[in-house]
Amino acid sequence: MSEPETFLWSGLASGVKESGKPDLGLAYSSYPSTVAGVFTQNSFPAAPVQVDRERLDESDGFRGLVVNSGVANAATGDQGIADCKAVLDSAAQRLGVDPDSVLAASTGNIGDPLPLETIQDALPESVDDLDEDSDEFAKSIQTTDTTTKSVYRAVPELNASMRGIAKGAGMIRPDMATMLGFVFFDHPVDGNWWQAILEEACSRSFNQITVDGEMSTNDTVLAFGATRPDRDPVDGSHPESSTVKTALEDICRSLARSIVLDGEGATRLIEICVTGASDPDQAGLVADSIANSNLLKTAIYGGDPNWGRVYSAIGATQLDLDPEVLSISMEGYTLYDPGRDLRSIPEDLEEELSTPGNVTIRVDLNKGSSEARRLTCDLTEEYVRINADYEP
Amino acid sequence: MSEPETFLWSGLASGVKESGKPDLGLAYSSYPSTVAGVFTQNSFPAAPVQVDRERLDESDGFRGLVVNSGVANAATGDQGIADCKAVLDSAAQRLGVDPDSVLAASTGNIGDPLPLETIQDALPESVDDLDEDSDEFAKSIQTTDTTTKSVYRAVPELNASMRGIAKGAGMIRPDMATMLGFVFFDHPVDGNWWQAILEEACSRSFNQITVDGEMSTNDTVLAFGATRPDRDPVDGSHPESSTVKTALEDICRSLARSIVLDGEGATRLIEICVTGASDPDQAGLVADSIANSNLLKTAIYGGDPNWGRVYSAIGATQLDLDPEVLSISMEGYTLYDPGRDLRSIPEDLEEELSTPGNVTIRVDLNKGSSEARRLTCDLTEEYVRINADYEP
Repeated sequence: MSEPETFLWSGLASGVKESGKPDLGLAYSSYPSTVAGVFTQNSFPAAPVQVDRERLDESDGFRGLVVNSGVANAATGDQGIADCKAVLDSAAQRLGVDPDSVLAASTGNIGDPLPLETIQDALPESVDDLDEDSDEFAKSIQTTDTTTKSVYRAVPELNASMRGIAKGAGMIRPDMATMLGFVFFDHPVDGNWWQAILEEACSRSFNQITVDGEMSTNDTVLAFGATRPDRDPVDGSHPESSTVKTALEDICRSLARSIVLDGEGATRLIEICVTGASDPDQAGLVADSIANSNLLKTAIYGGDPNWGRVYSAIGATQLDLDPEVLSISMEGYTLYDPGRDLRSIPEDLEEELSTPGNVTIRVDLNKGSSEARRLTCDLTEEYVRINADYEP
Repeated sequence: MSEPETFLWSGLASGVKESGKPDLGLAYSSYPSTVAGVFTQNSFPAAPVQVDRERLDESDGFRGLVVNSGVANAATGDQGIADCKAVLDSAAQRLGVDPDSVLAASTGNIGDPLPLETIQDALPESVDDLDEDSDEFAKSIQTTDTTTKSVYRAVPELNASMRGIAKGAGMIRPDMATMLGFVFFDHPVDGNWWQAILEEACSRSFNQITVDGEMSTNDTVLAFGATRPDRDPVDGSHPESSTVKTALEDICRSLARSIVLDGEGATRLIEICVTGASDPDQAGLVADSIANSNLLKTAIYGGDPNWGRVYSAIGATQLDLDPEVLSISMEGYTLYDPGRDLRSIPEDLEEELSTPGNVTIRVDLNKGSSEARRLTCDLTEEYVRINADYEP
């Protein structure tokens, strides 16, 4: 597997998860990295989110990232922050880097204390295991994910490349969710510009997906840009700035899509495109309401092109919309359009929906020119089973 | 069965439902009734909601109510309104009452045209069947309900009584849902006061329940007060005004509770009490966020006292709240309280949650003195099955 140079990764089972599955990931940046971050909007951010925010504000030149799965280190108060920092201190010491230059992320059960000694005991092996293969790292950050989510993209114009790694599965909704996403770019970047393009990339990727309308305490996206001494940093005026921006957005979109595809219990990817809204907020609210409708998502699971549930979800926004001018289509078939007398569902569409796959739902509000897009998945018995009996 | 005098009911299978189940209910008021109404907040109200709103604004002295299940008559445009009025005209003619004195309600699939002739053909039998027993009426308004929802309450102080009848099951969330509720009171009431106390009763009952966070196009609550010529209307200054107000609220609360208990696939009734909020809006938003959390509702189904999902749902409101002062309890057991070192779930609680029943979740935000309360139910595989393969 090709990887961006200058980064090393490892992943192992430290014992945080009782199942014995991998639960501790470590990433190391051979050169100090400029790091941009986007975090959960939940009012109660987990300890690692609080620590990372503080470090991104106050420091620069990051050298490492410690991720544990199994325990979210959320709702753990001051002790949680102390535990998080203690893990980072141990990692920094073992890596031989500045204590403030290591970042953290956690995912798993809320409320359990971070098993400090378990993680600290495993860190020496984590450091020893570091190599140029990010596979074990990608495995170690999973919870109910059924597949690793990892994307590579070469940036030949700069003789560089990016690796993106994420975890998702449940508790996913726009504005982040229990999802972690990390991007490693082996090229220097200007910090402000990097933060700006990461935010833009997130708004077009991770912030457009929803699995179950839940917003987690731990959502974190971090993008590393290695400040290799032999290269000039990319900023907004660099000739390859749009190349880098596109690469970053491609990676985020690809990871976001794979998170929804691996949504808990999902059998169908549902893409919702709302057009013709009077403003972006209206477009977003309509798209969110459709994407978070349990009734629509169970109908799609049942292969039922139930456009009435789309219609009802649009109206449930309580926005000033006109049902007499809007139209609803699925897979290109117009199902609701007040100008026509639509009384039956095309058989071809029913046939198409009867097997798992992708479903595109388009809504044209016919009020203006703003658009919004959401990716979600169907709601299945398996989602209920997974979450009724969740063991991280 | 005791019933309020002066009202007659019937219910039969007209053929709207292909299953052959009852689908047409008729209620008749021997005296003109003062009617108060509360309707869905959905931006796209169904035809019967539009017709009722108009009639309540413009007329008085109502004599009848026609309810059909199976077809919602929503997303049907001008034709839907014409169809609704045609049904009411036929009913009025057969009942020998003024055409504008009959109201309508529909519940069922969105988008199908109202089968006008089917209903009109059945109306003569509906009128012939009218009698003092409301049972068949209660059956005819059901969709995925598994039981009828009907409550009787005597008001001996006025030598009168009330009957409340509702349907619910799915698409239920605060601010109404696909729920229909009708109250019949065999006593005159002042119209403005009756509307005011119905709104208050709804805010303490139907508007506090959620099954799946969905808001329907058809929600309707209508309360009839028969203007019997031998009695004085009750208004706010009447000596028995609080008796009537309490009776109406009791009926609405009881019906609301039975709707949640019969929530699609539900095995557990979940009562959420939020206290200590800085204002009622904050209390309501926190309670809604918890009550609509798929993750919490599946956990409760699994018998898992997963307070972390309550905590996360509170934070997901993005309100300015302090996790260091709030507390969370289930069934009286404090599970989260930053002042204590809570690391384990009491075994008694796990035992208690392991069997279906009622679960009470209390959250004290410790910010002020406002409160909110929600009733919801767990999310089960059966909910998914019902809605993946919905036939009204």
